[in-house]
Amino acid sequence: MLGKDYAGQECALASALEVLGERWTLLIIRDAFFGVRRYGEWVARLDIPRAVLSERLRALVDNGVMEKRDDPDRPARTVYELTAVGQDLWPALHALIAWGSEHRRRSTNVYRHVACETELQAGARCPTCDMVPPADDVLVIPRSDGAKGRTDPVSVAMRRPRHLLEPLKVAA
Amino acid sequence: MLGKDYAGQECALASALEVLGERWTLLIIRDAFFGVRRYGEWVARLDIPRAVLSERLRALVDNGVMEKRDDPDRPARTVYELTAVGQDLWPALHALIAWGSEHRRRSTNVYRHVACETELQAGARCPTCDMVPPADDVLVIPRSDGAKGRTDPVSVAMRRPRHLLEPLKVAA
Repeated sequence: MLGKDYAGQECALASALEVLGERWTLLIIRDAFFGVRRYGEWVARLDIPRAVLSERLRALVDNGVMEKRDDPDRPARTVYELTAVGQDLWPALHALIAWGSEHRRRSTNVYRHVACETELQAGARCPTCDMVPPADDVLVIPRSDGAKGRTDPVSVAMRRPRHLLEPLKVAA
Repeated sequence: MLGKDYAGQECALASALEVLGERWTLLIIRDAFFGVRRYGEWVARLDIPRAVLSERLRALVDNGVMEKRDDPDRPARTVYELTAVGQDLWPALHALIAWGSEHRRRSTNVYRHVACETELQAGARCPTCDMVPPADDVLVIPRSDGAKGRTDPVSVAMRRPRHLLEPLKVAA
């Protein structure tokens, strides 16, 4: 009854939650948009057991949200990247971040369209260009007064402006 | 470690998931947008144990997403309604439905702006009026070829066009 499917719930929301609704899954996807690609980077950034992380990544690959590729910088290692289907989650992620920021804890980042540097509005939409820019066309600007809670090297690497999906440069 | 909070995850998304991330919670909220207000209506519509439903509703009230009120039609009974904070979830819900509908199972409904009957686009936005209509200004139109799987009276009552947040008229 409390498994991961929603038997009898035919709607599109239930179908999305069957892929996204497990605990930690949306935070793993968030970090992928923020440039995390390596297993060890998620380990550093999220305080979850490795077995849970492995299971979540495997399910995301099985469901076509992420894909495994050879690591271009490290022979015999792999990276996980969002597929086109996974990248389509950006507006939903932006909407959840906007709600959380408005009503719970202020977002640590501002999101701007690369082309015009306008801050994205509701629906991850650029009002200047009248479009929803794809994720790799979005700038992530950490707020100068943003939370500085985490000191792991991955979180520290996220404290500079960059594009969404741009691989993080993590200090060795 | 796998409790309902995300200790050490300072971001706005984690703060939203602390309220929304429990299994079934977003489906309970979906049904509230669809006009469900009574405990027994959720029981009919969702195949979950009553204890789980009670716990989820209580948490949503505690977190300011829903509120309990006297049932206007039934003395000594209560209804649950989305607060203004809860109603602000509509764009996030629409974005998740849109992703599910595009990549998983087609949505059983179409959403239109009451004023102009234009179908809502990305971000729950009305392109004709250049605005994001609030939830009670949105028409829910069930697709004629939509899934007809559930035969409970609440799901049957959802098979007619109506406004979001309009109390469902469920056959006794």
